[in-house]
Amino acid sequence: MSGNNSIDKAKLADQLLIAVENNNIDHIQDLLSHLVAEEIAEILESSPIKVRQVLWQQIDSDKQGEILTHTNDEVKSNLLETMQPHEIVEIAEDLQTDDIADIAQSLPIHDQKTFLASLNEDDRNAVETALTYPEDTAGGLMSTDFISIRADVSLDVVLRYLRTLGAIPESTSELFVADRDGKYIGSLKLTHLLTHDEDTLVADILDQSLPAIRAFTPEKDVAHLFEKNDLISAAVINENHIILGRITIDDVVDIIREEGEHAQMASAGLDEDEDIFAPAARAAKRRTFWLGINLLTAIFASIVIGLFDASIEKIVALAILMPIIASMGGIAGTQTATIVIRAMATGKLGRSNSRSLLIKETTVGLLNGLIWALLTGTAVFFWFSDWSLSLIFAFALMINLIAAALAGALIPLFLQRMKIDPALASGLMLTTVTDSLGFFVFLGLATIVLL
Amino acid sequence: MSGNNSIDKAKLADQLLIAVENNNIDHIQDLLSHLVAEEIAEILESSPIKVRQVLWQQIDSDKQGEILTHTNDEVKSNLLETMQPHEIVEIAEDLQTDDIADIAQSLPIHDQKTFLASLNEDDRNAVETALTYPEDTAGGLMSTDFISIRADVSLDVVLRYLRTLGAIPESTSELFVADRDGKYIGSLKLTHLLTHDEDTLVADILDQSLPAIRAFTPEKDVAHLFEKNDLISAAVINENHIILGRITIDDVVDIIREEGEHAQMASAGLDEDEDIFAPAARAAKRRTFWLGINLLTAIFASIVIGLFDASIEKIVALAILMPIIASMGGIAGTQTATIVIRAMATGKLGRSNSRSLLIKETTVGLLNGLIWALLTGTAVFFWFSDWSLSLIFAFALMINLIAAALAGALIPLFLQRMKIDPALASGLMLTTVTDSLGFFVFLGLATIVLL
Repeated sequence: MSGNNSIDKAKLADQLLIAVENNNIDHIQDLLSHLVAEEIAEILESSPIKVRQVLWQQIDSDKQGEILTHTNDEVKSNLLETMQPHEIVEIAEDLQTDDIADIAQSLPIHDQKTFLASLNEDDRNAVETALTYPEDTAGGLMSTDFISIRADVSLDVVLRYLRTLGAIPESTSELFVADRDGKYIGSLKLTHLLTHDEDTLVADILDQSLPAIRAFTPEKDVAHLFEKNDLISAAVINENHIILGRITIDDVVDIIREEGEHAQMASAGLDEDEDIFAPAARAAKRRTFWLGINLLTAIFASIVIGLFDASIEKIVALAILMPIIASMGGIAGTQTATIVIRAMATGKLGRSNSRSLLIKETTVGLLNGLIWALLTGTAVFFWFSDWSLSLIFAFALMINLIAAALAGALIPLFLQRMKIDPALASGLMLTTVTDSLGFFVFLGLATIVLL
Repeated sequence: MSGNNSIDKAKLADQLLIAVENNNIDHIQDLLSHLVAEEIAEILESSPIKVRQVLWQQIDSDKQGEILTHTNDEVKSNLLETMQPHEIVEIAEDLQTDDIADIAQSLPIHDQKTFLASLNEDDRNAVETALTYPEDTAGGLMSTDFISIRADVSLDVVLRYLRTLGAIPESTSELFVADRDGKYIGSLKLTHLLTHDEDTLVADILDQSLPAIRAFTPEKDVAHLFEKNDLISAAVINENHIILGRITIDDVVDIIREEGEHAQMASAGLDEDEDIFAPAARAAKRRTFWLGINLLTAIFASIVIGLFDASIEKIVALAILMPIIASMGGIAGTQTATIVIRAMATGKLGRSNSRSLLIKETTVGLLNGLIWALLTGTAVFFWFSDWSLSLIFAFALMINLIAAALAGALIPLFLQRMKIDPALASGLMLTTVTDSLGFFVFLGLATIVLL
């Protein structure tokens, strides 16, 4: 087992690319045969579209299904587009029902109907149930392959039953215990099943502390429940407590990874499902919207500068120095906003502590404002040999750093209350404040004092 | 089970704060008694330091240990500072050895020795072994509570052995199979143990495909292995293949969460372990360094502006428009850099596809450059009624957007090759390029053409 996992992967991707360029089918097949589904999925995601499609054609159809369960939504759609309806049904057949439902959701609406109609009855029913729940809820995540037992039997009955079944679904760490109507009562951990006497009743050792999850619970809360209770799997129930399915930790790991990536991508106006090799025109179209919004905020800052054009004409040093004030404010505000956004995303910011956080951040802004006003004020004096200018610069910088801290804390809180994603919109609003205010205070003071 | 997990938590935190303010000990105790360790850890992390310490004193010492395993490093140190050495030993005694090692690592060096000396021999040996591995490797993550069996016994022997043990460590999904010397041979999944006949030999159904992880494997690679193979737990081995311990999925979930937060926090020069209620002076000290580096890049941009002071004096519109060019370049570059940094972090960017990505991103930059040059050039004409100025502006904007795409892709790749964290340093280097180049092209062209 090598520690250089990611380096090996990059090398393999290189070799695959060369094999694709040389149209060396045997070599492609050979390289692919050494990889598990998740690794092939990663290589597909990181391949330019043409290479991706050549590779996809070389993958055995009995492997394609599992690979699709590991690709992100955009790449999944991209690969499905290249396939015939009957091929899609074929690869879906071996998958768990939650993964079949994912494939159904990645198809255009009219293909979805044909696809569902082609499934066998059991799968179709399970998939149709899954599709009644939004993709980002427990119901949309669950698979229907779970084992449920009754509470009034002894462990040796359970053990015999499991041997009769011959196989237990992957990632099973507990059996669900249900009553006569299929209502969830609790769980029997496999570890308890293995350490208690065979004549013990299930009812005596069943664990009622493990939560069952309602089908409409948002995926983010599902992840929190798993983390809080160190779960490996959990039952999903409907409003009548009937067990519908099961969520396993591997689904939760995906949610947590996406959650982490969301904040990073959203702050640049990007989607965490973005295909890195989306066609340039499609990528440009998406990003141009974000640039347009940014332009509006930049124009606003320019208008503020325009208010003081007469002053700049007389003292050109103002134009030279003004970007420093805006830039420092932007950085300081981003630091505060990043902390606040993360605290909110992890549910750590409520009414009780947001005031304390605001006070702390403003104090940090004040301290940093004092330090940098002193240092840069001195530097400006040596640069332009003008005491008044350096004092005005220092004062404007300090004001902007304090305002940046306040805005960095208040803007995400405000956006959350407005039900706007703070990770997406905070950065732009913050820069609007720090740029415009920075320019206004600096140029305004200079106009009053120096002219 | 409510779906409003985070709202409930915020409410509870509010109630706790009020109880602390009113010094209502009974109410604090009552509220805390309804929470599991992970929830209390989150509330401690999200409480201002004074509240945190009052709450900590009200928590039973037999709960404190487990709570500490869920707090981040900085909060853990902060809480340990308030405790007596014998109290720390007391709460550590019930923990798994990996968590005891974490506590040891959070203590100042001289306290660490006393702490280790006070542990019982078994724990001390296990902790000292763990401490020989860096915290962010498999050896630093592992706990030593695993069950290993021999390959030449039948399943009924294993089942009897487990019943004799009476308990199996948490998150156990498989037993490790070792030879006479303790060398790892493979794993026996509990689900296989439960579905095969009792007279089957372990050797016949042991799974050799599950990887054992070398103790020095970096935690990032550990997480990839778990994700790739959908593992619940895995054996950690030394260079002689002797089993040293076990890593479980709950540790891996923490790694994945931290990985996700790293990119977000690092781009603002922050650490993902940052205590949101660190004392203001300490927080200011850390952030001031980042502001200082940013100042250098801002001064560099100002010097570029200073080169053209004569031009600005004559055409003040240049000073009004120049921030727009810098700002649009910064945003476009950040979009590209964010995509590249994420692709690198997930191991998706190698030699084979970085050229394709560079071409794609530059094309996106060119397309967006054309669109916005056209739109903003027109807007500038209506604002200043000057064809030459608007053409120069449009041209400079287009150049800067293309350069931003190039820089956004190349800077993270360059930093990675230099072994500098791209998530940390890309943003600043990128802004230096987009600001300075934007100012230079715009003001330089204007100077040549208009004056």
